[in-house]
This record gives sequence, C-alpha cells and structure tokens, in this order.
Amino acid sequence: MTMRPKRLADCRVTVIGLGLMGASLCMDLVQRRLCREVRGVARRVDTALRAFFAHAVDQATTDLDTGITGADLVVLATPVRTIVALLEELGPKLWPGTVILDMGSTKQAICQAMERMPAGLQPIGSHPMAGKERSGFTAAEPGLYQGAPWILSPLERTTPQALALAQELVEAVGGRPMVLDPERHDRMVAAISHLPFLLASSLVHTVADAAVSDPQVWTLAAGGFRDTSRVAASDTQMFLDILMTNREAVLDQLDTFQRHLQELQRLLAAGDEASLHTKLARSQALRARWRPMSEGGDPG
Amino acid sequence: MTMRPKRLADCRVTVIGLGLMGASLCMDLVQRRLCREVRGVARRVDTALRAFFAHAVDQATTDLDTGITGADLVVLATPVRTIVALLEELGPKLWPGTVILDMGSTKQAICQAMERMPAGLQPIGSHPMAGKERSGFTAAEPGLYQGAPWILSPLERTTPQALALAQELVEAVGGRPMVLDPERHDRMVAAISHLPFLLASSLVHTVADAAVSDPQVWTLAAGGFRDTSRVAASDTQMFLDILMTNREAVLDQLDTFQRHLQELQRLLAAGDEASLHTKLARSQALRARWRPMSEGGDPG
Repeated sequence: MTMRPKRLADCRVTVIGLGLMGASLCMDLVQRRLCREVRGVARRVDTALRAFFAHAVDQATTDLDTGITGADLVVLATPVRTIVALLEELGPKLWPGTVILDMGSTKQAICQAMERMPAGLQPIGSHPMAGKERSGFTAAEPGLYQGAPWILSPLERTTPQALALAQELVEAVGGRPMVLDPERHDRMVAAISHLPFLLASSLVHTVADAAVSDPQVWTLAAGGFRDTSRVAASDTQMFLDILMTNREAVLDQLDTFQRHLQELQRLLAAGDEASLHTKLARSQALRARWRPMSEGGDPG
Repeated sequence: MTMRPKRLADCRVTVIGLGLMGASLCMDLVQRRLCREVRGVARRVDTALRAFFAHAVDQATTDLDTGITGADLVVLATPVRTIVALLEELGPKLWPGTVILDMGSTKQAICQAMERMPAGLQPIGSHPMAGKERSGFTAAEPGLYQGAPWILSPLERTTPQALALAQELVEAVGGRPMVLDPERHDRMVAAISHLPFLLASSLVHTVADAAVSDPQVWTLAAGGFRDTSRVAASDTQMFLDILMTNREAVLDQLDTFQRHLQELQRLLAAGDEASLHTKLARSQALRARWRPMSEGGDPG
C-alpha cells in the first residue's frame, strides 16, 4: 500500500460538487492556504470557470477523472444519492490510501456505499451541520463552517491516521468534529433538520391556500412566518435525496410531531386553557434556554 | 363634545403596558419628540422606574387613573384579554373625544369590546405586525416598527380625524398603516402567525422527546431547528390570549396544515418520489420568491 501524507498541508484535495457546501470549503482551504492544492470538480462548465476566476479553487474541471488524478483527499459535496453513485464510480479509480470524505446530510446510505469500496481506500462519512436555505456556488462563502458541529462516521477499516486527517480538515475550517455512528446521526437529524423542512413546506402550502381567497396574506406575513418557513426554500433535489435515504426515521419523527400538534389542537378545541398553558410553557422554557452550538450552546 | 387636538404633536399620549410593544413605541415617541408628552403605565413598580430612568417615557406610574388623566390618545399594549378588560374599565373614565388604540394580535374580541365603549370615545383596533420572540421591557428598542405593516380596524363610529391621528402615529414610527376589518385580519394572522407558533411548540416537544434517549440532539440542532422553532420562545400568556380569542380561525388553519403534512407523509411512506418532488418544488418556489414587507416585499 502506498504511504500517503498524514498532514493536511501536504495534501492535494479534490472537492466534487461546487455548490454551497463544497465551494465554501474550497474557499476556506484556498484562502487560508490549508493544503497543497485544491481542485474543484463541477457538473457545469460555467460553475467551474466561476470558481476558478473567483479564486475559490486552484484548478477547476468538469471531468471527474482529471479532477481526482493525484488527489490525497477527495471530498464529495453533492446531493446524497449522487454521492452514493460517485462512491461506486470512484472506487476502482482512486489510489490505495486515498482518504474520501463526503458532506451529505444522511449517513447510513453513504456509509453503506463506503463499505463496498475497495479495501485499500480510506472512506469516512462526514456531515457538517451548517448550511442555509440558499444553495449553489453563488451562496458559498468563506467561514461557513466556523463553530459548526461536524459529524464524522469512520468505518471499521478507517485508520487512526485517516480519521486524524479528517479531524484536522474540520478543525482547520473552524468546525467541531464529533464522531457519531450513522444510525444515530440519521435518527437525530430526522428530528432537528428533516422534520422542520417538511413543516416549513406544509406551512407555505397552508399560507398559499389562504392566499387564494386573500392574496394580501403574503404582504402581512412577518417574522413568525419568515422564520418558521425559511428552510422550505432549500434546494428540492437535495432534500428529496435526504428524505428518500432517511425515510423511516423521518416518518417516526412525523408521528411524534403529529401527536404533539394534535394534542394542542384538541386542547384548543376543548378550550382547556390550563393544560394548553402547561404544554406551551414547557416548550417556551425549553426553546428560550436553548442556544445553537455555533453560538456557544451546551448540551440541553 | 370636547374638541380634541388633531395632530400628534399636540397630543398627550398614554401607553398602558410597558412590554416589548408598548415600551418600543414609547421610545420612538420620546426620542423623536413626536408628541407633547408620553406617559407610561406599568403593572410593576420596577418596570415603571426602569422606563422612566431609561428615558423611554416622560412620566411613569403604576396607577391607571393617574396614567390616563388628561390623555388625548391612549394606547393599550397588554395581552389581548387584558386589553378587553381594560377597555371595559376605561370606558367611563376617559374624556369624550379621547382616541384609543390597542396593539393586540387579534382584533375581533377587541373591536367588539370597543363597540361597547361610551359613544363619545374614539376607539380604533390596531395591530403592528412587528415583534420578536423575546418579550418585556428589556427587549424593547427604538425603531421596532420601521417598515412593519400596521393594521388599523376603525369602528363605524370612528371619525376621519381619529383615523388620521392613528395613521399619523403609525407613520411617525415608520410603520405602514393598512385598514383591514377584524374578521379578515384574524383569519390571516391565524395562518401566518398563530399556526407557526403551534408548529414551533410541537417541534420543540418532538425534539425534547428525541432528547430523552439521546440528549446530544440539542447539541447538534442547528439552523433548521433554530429558525423553525424560534417563535416557540414567545411569551406563553400572550399567545394563550391570542389562541383563545382566535380559536376557530386557528383550528381551520390547523386542519389545512394537517392535510398538507399528511399528504407529504403519505407520499414519503409510499416512496412516490415524483409527487413528492412536485409538492416540495412548489413550496420551494413560493418561499424563495417571497420577501417580507419590511424588506421591500410585494404582494405575492
């Protein structure tokens, strides 16, 4: 097996997918000079050109084979099911010892595909818990990962050296590496990320229905609607991949959510003000106390 | 009937309730010198003192009778059902011609109580569509109403002069006055404000359930959870008053929401990816296009 460099500074890094997540990572790597070279692979020529002329990458290409030639570390930053397909395709093409990271939002399907890669490779599942509702290269920005929890799911075969390199990358861009197994990861993000997306989408549909008879509802909508519906503007294909690769966990969380909403509905219909107060006061206290980790929050 | 001054600059204004909404209004009135005098009435002595020493008001008191003496314009800025009770209590105490505004989040119960006030008074229902999840005097700030739609619901008796004074007040603090009848107002805010609150509360309960077996879920929760759950931190009593005075409209919107969420749930369970894509892409497009009025948005 070829010996591979252990330090990020020695690595040629190839990032496949120059959307929000991939391009933001490239910008940090290039601008902070964190590695030897950053190569970006985009699907579309104009994205590759744009990334190159914006100095987001050292080299850009739309050709996968050109992109991965000589890479020590390959980062996959596409929608989840494209990552799964890419892992299949890349397996026979990468040099032994190459470290492969992904940035996908679900981990089980991806880590299963990683298990199937040739034995000499070093794949590690990974998910930076950062993002915003805008997507694509134009939304990318340096510093996106500052303070963000960044999940790492090493495989059984993953060497301590490969894991250390992944952790070094995460920390170099300001993320907080946390090792977590894929099942547990997927169960948690179903509650905190995938469920909120479905709620936001349903809320937008509800307001759109109200707007049929009264279009002014869009004009009046303010902070409450703005925040609660924000993630509905996220990229559809990205979320479709997430939902389809995390169906059971998402359906479980939907059941729990429905139970709580139906209880509020029942208490309101019955005019049971005391019980309504108790239930609303509990979520009020929990939410008022909670702070995101990126703002210095602690486990609740 | 006593002739009352027509211009805000000539008015003695009394604001009852020095929480987020009332105190923010006082700060604008005092700091921009928009009227002759600003008197604040607080429930608690320490809020009255705090407002006075922060120069949020010209005078502060905890005594309602002292507060309203000589007022040309009285603004009620308490939870909805306290406003209803105050209207009852104030009716016989106010001088003929006094203009009365409220800042409550539902309008039907309040405008009905206004109808019952003595004939010589000039009550107008009002609702500034601004706010944040923090409440109380400490959350108050000048400029809160800048760019915010501000609903006015005049009664049949309301004179053009009284309505003009209300509009002048709204515009003086940067709000955008919009005349709307109470029923229509309540139906719209049920969709864009009261429903999101119930969703946020149910989401917090769902994540709390997930945290029972895995407390780390609070640590990982990031942007999606943060935004979608934000309004759950709103004051419980304020929202209880809102829900109890707008029950039917809220229950209607809950039904519509449940229909949309259950459809998403069904499509996901069935793995009907094409229909799921269509439905998610529609809410994506609607939400990505929408801008709040305070950011220059137009009717959708």
